[in-house]
Amino acid sequence: MKKSISELKKLSKICRGDILKMTYVSKSGHPGGSMSSIDIYLSVFNRANMNPEKPFDVNRDKTIISHGHTSPGVYAALGRLGFFNIEEALAGFRHPGSIFEGHVTRGIPGIEWSTGNLGQGLSAGVGMALAAKKLNNNSRVYVLSSDGESPKGQIAEARRTAKKENLNNLTVIVDYNDIQISGRARDVLYVDIASEYKSAGWNIIEIDGHNFEQINAALESAENYKLGPTAIIAKTIIGKDVSFMENRHEYHGSPLNETELEKALKELNVENDVKKYIEMRNKLTLERDSHNYNNVKLDVNTGKPIMYTRETTTDNRSAWGNAVADLAVLNKDKFPVVTIDCDLKPSVKLAKFEKVNPEGYVQIGIQEHNAATIGGAMSTCGVLTFFTDFGVFGLDEVFNQQRLNDINHTNFNTAITHCGIDVGEDGKTHHAINYIGLVRNMYNTQLIVPADPNQTDRAIRYAASHEGNVITAMGRSKIPVILNENGEIFFNENYEFEYGKADIFRKGKGLTIFTYGSFANMAVNAADELKKEGINISVVNLSTPLSINVEEIKEFIEDNIVITYEDHNVNSGIANELSKLIVENGLKVKKIINMGVNEYAPSGSIKYLLKYFGMDVESLIKKIKELMK
Amino acid sequence: MKKSISELKKLSKICRGDILKMTYVSKSGHPGGSMSSIDIYLSVFNRANMNPEKPFDVNRDKTIISHGHTSPGVYAALGRLGFFNIEEALAGFRHPGSIFEGHVTRGIPGIEWSTGNLGQGLSAGVGMALAAKKLNNNSRVYVLSSDGESPKGQIAEARRTAKKENLNNLTVIVDYNDIQISGRARDVLYVDIASEYKSAGWNIIEIDGHNFEQINAALESAENYKLGPTAIIAKTIIGKDVSFMENRHEYHGSPLNETELEKALKELNVENDVKKYIEMRNKLTLERDSHNYNNVKLDVNTGKPIMYTRETTTDNRSAWGNAVADLAVLNKDKFPVVTIDCDLKPSVKLAKFEKVNPEGYVQIGIQEHNAATIGGAMSTCGVLTFFTDFGVFGLDEVFNQQRLNDINHTNFNTAITHCGIDVGEDGKTHHAINYIGLVRNMYNTQLIVPADPNQTDRAIRYAASHEGNVITAMGRSKIPVILNENGEIFFNENYEFEYGKADIFRKGKGLTIFTYGSFANMAVNAADELKKEGINISVVNLSTPLSINVEEIKEFIEDNIVITYEDHNVNSGIANELSKLIVENGLKVKKIINMGVNEYAPSGSIKYLLKYFGMDVESLIKKIKELMK
Repeated sequence: MKKSISELKKLSKICRGDILKMTYVSKSGHPGGSMSSIDIYLSVFNRANMNPEKPFDVNRDKTIISHGHTSPGVYAALGRLGFFNIEEALAGFRHPGSIFEGHVTRGIPGIEWSTGNLGQGLSAGVGMALAAKKLNNNSRVYVLSSDGESPKGQIAEARRTAKKENLNNLTVIVDYNDIQISGRARDVLYVDIASEYKSAGWNIIEIDGHNFEQINAALESAENYKLGPTAIIAKTIIGKDVSFMENRHEYHGSPLNETELEKALKELNVENDVKKYIEMRNKLTLERDSHNYNNVKLDVNTGKPIMYTRETTTDNRSAWGNAVADLAVLNKDKFPVVTIDCDLKPSVKLAKFEKVNPEGYVQIGIQEHNAATIGGAMSTCGVLTFFTDFGVFGLDEVFNQQRLNDINHTNFNTAITHCGIDVGEDGKTHHAINYIGLVRNMYNTQLIVPADPNQTDRAIRYAASHEGNVITAMGRSKIPVILNENGEIFFNENYEFEYGKADIFRKGKGLTIFTYGSFANMAVNAADELKKEGINISVVNLSTPLSINVEEIKEFIEDNIVITYEDHNVNSGIANELSKLIVENGLKVKKIINMGVNEYAPSGSIKYLLKYFGMDVESLIKKIKELMK
Repeated sequence: MKKSISELKKLSKICRGDILKMTYVSKSGHPGGSMSSIDIYLSVFNRANMNPEKPFDVNRDKTIISHGHTSPGVYAALGRLGFFNIEEALAGFRHPGSIFEGHVTRGIPGIEWSTGNLGQGLSAGVGMALAAKKLNNNSRVYVLSSDGESPKGQIAEARRTAKKENLNNLTVIVDYNDIQISGRARDVLYVDIASEYKSAGWNIIEIDGHNFEQINAALESAENYKLGPTAIIAKTIIGKDVSFMENRHEYHGSPLNETELEKALKELNVENDVKKYIEMRNKLTLERDSHNYNNVKLDVNTGKPIMYTRETTTDNRSAWGNAVADLAVLNKDKFPVVTIDCDLKPSVKLAKFEKVNPEGYVQIGIQEHNAATIGGAMSTCGVLTFFTDFGVFGLDEVFNQQRLNDINHTNFNTAITHCGIDVGEDGKTHHAINYIGLVRNMYNTQLIVPADPNQTDRAIRYAASHEGNVITAMGRSKIPVILNENGEIFFNENYEFEYGKADIFRKGKGLTIFTYGSFANMAVNAADELKKEGINISVVNLSTPLSINVEEIKEFIEDNIVITYEDHNVNSGIANELSKLIVENGLKVKKIINMGVNEYAPSGSIKYLLKYFGMDVESLIKKIKELMK
């Protein structure tokens, strides 16, 4: 049951009281901005197609709170509109035993995206609005933003995509209270928010953000505007409705003390019942319910593998391009299959995908931060979502966007190409040599670095069907298909990709090369050459370098000389994982030699660079012979 | 000797020939964009106060090539204007034995900043222009950019700072050829470049980028405009002056073949002498001269330490704030001392610095990418440059900007506060628990995580005087001063910070806790409590976790139980360094227990969070007792 405007006006005082109580009880949090945004929150949550009885309905409207520190306002509004028991938020806010975290948290009914790092919310909203378009449903998306975060560049990026994709189902409301931590927003920076949205081709409405009639009229007007997205710039007052808090930036991040609280609640005509919530809080333990992130589940048809034979020397990125095109054909009648590109179509091999599934090809331009967040958000909505880019752009440049996807438990497939010094001539700015070192910092994202086109094909199919984030890293060069000792295809028709499983390419004695990715075939090469001279070494492929099963590889470590051999920064690659595993399990290794990239590489062909670093097959063989003497 | 316009016109054909030859000889590179930018390059390098005889003069004008892939054009123009021998570029382009890398590289005369990752150049230019203002010199800065990179959000950020700081010594020239990899720029994205610069308050001039008279007039007009920065939007033609290359995006990243080259050079009326350069190239080895980055050297007075006694419980970030204020007072008459803030002054403790050195306080607003690049660039110019921010913003969000600073060998001091779960209630989006895991990927950046306010004070003084990049990571909480076994201050008046040195806080037997940062005092606490019960353990502080001297700590590992205890993601923290070191050196450890953050933390006070993760002193003591049984 939707509320009338006069009911909302009453709730607005109550919610302001909640904000002050919540932050008082937790002795922490952001009351000021919450009180400038609260009338907008109440209006949007009330007007939107959001139903407390079915908060995760697939056709619901969605709201993203981009300035996530206004969580007290969000929790107050959602609680008072019946999305959950408000008392739980009042007592549990910012307590580890409660889901009501300091910044809004995905999974709480009514909250679609965990935020906190400013500037990413609009991209998330664009992702969800674009998903609604692809899904052909009527869902609207509201992004609640602030003047303080408006300078973030990612917002400028998101604006352009919203216009380009004609997202008339997207409304942004900017809480313009003109106060941030360092004082007046206008003093902190030259930023004309309305003009920037206008330059980007948006529909603009300017209103008083504490006038419910104006807020509602603006929301209605935005719904009726069909030519693109709408931005509502809402002038507000920080600390609104408590005389001594109004327009004071000191209340941005500081709760009231006891005397101030008493005074404020009196002004708001709200009962001071904080004792009750303090008592409830004191009873909280450190246990809390597990969290459901409510990604829309996809039943992905992974089809049959495409086989690459020893005659077809190709690059892993082509195998990726073929696999994703195949997945699109197999699934596009069941749900949208989208691949996001940042102006690199020929290099990341998307031509085929675009041909078979043009409606799934999304061009974001050179705006990687925006692309990574759009993709993450879209992947939660029932769209099979891929994002492809060079490693330095799809991971190094957007590490924090991928971290937020990781925090949000999205269902996002990133395929990064041009990893390693394998990129060659483009040089050090383009050498993504940290893919393991970066993904190691994420708790919920899998990393796959396939050894050849066949393993790539299978890895992409696995990633598509796996629920959760997967990053697949590939090089640039054409590489041969891996063969077993009998000259047969190693990853054959019967091979199924299993996350965490090592591949034993060669089994020898006394020395093992641990490798993966584009270096794997060279390790095999070295082993086969050495075999001709009667030296039998082992080659173990760790295509999931962050998930290694010690039982599988123990025998290749114990009493062996171990060589790690990787197209990666030697300080942050598999040597770390293997060493930890060796020490933790008390394994006895004869010696370990870590071969990898030990400085920024110059510009040059991969052939030259391998020589430069002493990592070509010849140098590898020479080193092994010395070690085995 | 500056060239006349008619001389430049002649050079322009020759340079176009060089571009085609250079990319032909190296069989790689970007001819198309180079040919649309070349007339601009010649005009700017010729007009600017750049002297081939003194290319690193401190008062020179500076140019940043933001779209660094147009390196063939840059090398051709600089070479033909006498900055180096053009034949070296023609033969060496993209060869590992040559400094003429695929993307423009800092240190080559005339090139101020290594680029390649698009969108960062304008921020670098802002940093250098702002440095010139702070240094009170007349140096102008030119940023050469392109339409393709214009959507990058960081450019929008940089525009705002340029306006806010009234950088009338900054001119941007946008090469608007309307072609990018995916086709017409206007089809890739909705982006109105002129309007965006206008919205940001810039002076705009639109010209034909192949008309030398117009280019020169525009540059002159920009010099005379005093009310802020100027953007020159230069309409150009990709592949200009070779009939079959004009307006064809296929030539963005592909060199010509032999027949095409012959035809093109004929059209340009340039001799085909590529054989000569191919021969020169074939003689190149993989050795190359070491690279001088030409940072302006600073003779920093580090003063006397500020001592914190056992009575003064404070936080490391306050010690940082006090130290940087002290350094400002001590040095500001010798050179500018700048600290960059992103709207977090009270939290990052800059009030004192701003008070003693207001002209050094630079407010960038919530634009972290921009801030990190501005700081890096500024630090090369003779300005003692600090940047302070929360860990998630100053490192996680800007990893790739810090990576470019690392590649550029800048002299940049980053002080990140609010690291670890020590941040508490703000929750997971704000918990920077990857600072080791991220900096491990950098080759030229030092990381310090001081254990208390005294070590922080000394670390900041060290960082200021050290030439190179240093990141100092701090927590949020107030922590006690570390005392030695006799109850005296550990980091006393005689203590000097030494990068790579371990601190032996307690020396016991059989079990060692390796720790650092805000957890160190708890480890000491646990040791002292255990001592009362007759259990003597060691506590070793690794304040430079990425640089550990095995000789110093060997005795604390061999035949010991080792506990790593850190406010960091347990998968990417010191356990990695220690394990590698143990395996590489064949040390015998009894057992290793890695204590750290093993999932995204909930929101809660640090006291609660420590309990939640079983990492409070009580749990630590309990664990040690079990282990020592």
